[in-house]
Amino acid sequence: MQPEARLGTVKLVGAGPGAADLLTLRAARAIGSAQALLYDALISEEVLALAPAACLKIQTGKRAGRTSMKQETINRLMLRLARRGIDVVRLKGGDPSIFGRVGEEQAFLNSHGVSTEIVPGVTAASAAAAQFGFPLTHRGESRRLLICTATAAGGGLVEVGRKSLGADTTLALYMARDQVRDAADQLMSEGWLGCTPAIAVENAGHSAARGVAGTLETLAQALDVAKPTGPVVILIGEVTARASIASFADVSPARALS
Amino acid sequence: MQPEARLGTVKLVGAGPGAADLLTLRAARAIGSAQALLYDALISEEVLALAPAACLKIQTGKRAGRTSMKQETINRLMLRLARRGIDVVRLKGGDPSIFGRVGEEQAFLNSHGVSTEIVPGVTAASAAAAQFGFPLTHRGESRRLLICTATAAGGGLVEVGRKSLGADTTLALYMARDQVRDAADQLMSEGWLGCTPAIAVENAGHSAARGVAGTLETLAQALDVAKPTGPVVILIGEVTARASIASFADVSPARALS
Repeated sequence: MQPEARLGTVKLVGAGPGAADLLTLRAARAIGSAQALLYDALISEEVLALAPAACLKIQTGKRAGRTSMKQETINRLMLRLARRGIDVVRLKGGDPSIFGRVGEEQAFLNSHGVSTEIVPGVTAASAAAAQFGFPLTHRGESRRLLICTATAAGGGLVEVGRKSLGADTTLALYMARDQVRDAADQLMSEGWLGCTPAIAVENAGHSAARGVAGTLETLAQALDVAKPTGPVVILIGEVTARASIASFADVSPARALS
Repeated sequence: MQPEARLGTVKLVGAGPGAADLLTLRAARAIGSAQALLYDALISEEVLALAPAACLKIQTGKRAGRTSMKQETINRLMLRLARRGIDVVRLKGGDPSIFGRVGEEQAFLNSHGVSTEIVPGVTAASAAAAQFGFPLTHRGESRRLLICTATAAGGGLVEVGRKSLGADTTLALYMARDQVRDAADQLMSEGWLGCTPAIAVENAGHSAARGVAGTLETLAQALDVAKPTGPVVILIGEVTARASIASFADVSPARALS
């Protein structure tokens, strides 16, 4: 038998919310020395530009629930590259541990003897809050942060019931663009007040981010006007009234700012 | 009247979880050009070393609930510096929007005409998950992440009731070191199973991080043995059984790894 070639390693790296300078130094270095880069569709050009010219770049094409490459295909591709001794960077938007399927990819690779390292990133809720100048927790207004998907909220899951969570909770709904109305309706049916301040942030963390302010009741209508095409995170809770998008009283039906 | 001098600005910057290379590039640049740096006690030496030699460095000394400098004092100090035309970096561990009192500092400064900018950071839950190789959400195991303080959990707040949240929730309890037993008891009294996997991570994101694995029932006892002195974040939920701390079956009463 031939001696086995050295196996490549796979770094599962959080690219953060979009702007290249919101990468961690560790992530930037990993990208800068990658031999192969597998990246999701939402990774920005300025982040990809950090990879070496000789780096093999492969878009895996996930975007808003549509998967151009199946998870199994991505897994197999990473394994094949690692078996050729290639060091792979698997780049995911935000923090890979939050809705990034990092557990599945890691389990698959480790089960085939490929070692993995996870590099954390700034998650979308943090980016949106920083960019629009409101906190996620705030004394007397919010003492906890619940991160879930808009689909889960719209699906009537009990976790977002206002009675059980308390109004002093900030909700962050990820992957929300096409689910805002359903999620808002569901939340109101579970006791959240229609007048609860809310903000939708498109492309959070990018220079091209847009915030659309409103309330749980008005946000879907506001988004009908704003027509976001990028990824959207919705933040719901009193803290969002502190966003630097002037007053919330006049947001009817919509005021989008860039 | 004399013409007003230029007001300095204040950047409210997330230092991330500890290691300097887990700073974002934006945060590292802000620190590297700071004229004055006000930093919490948990900011590491390697992060502080990025500040220019001429930078005025002031420790505000918050640590595990004890405040050496009152919030009002910190606010006034930032204002006084800005009024002298000094550009201030206010450095906070993790992400400033999550339990970082960034809303209070921002509101105070803006009310006095000082402009602020928030730079997001990697939060402790993301850092702990990446470092110990488990996801925060995972298909079939966890579909949401609730971040709160251990004090809130121990205080019997309804938000962590298992019935309302569902077992497929990952809980992240921040500032947990001295609250683990109370928080675990409270969670179990609210229906969380004692056998739910849990991990305590001391100094998450630092090279000196330690993970202590257990269950909701055994974790407090394990920590009695491990005796952490640094900040501790507790992660609770099925996903934590994926942490790269071997098996959880033999963790009785404790197995700490460095």
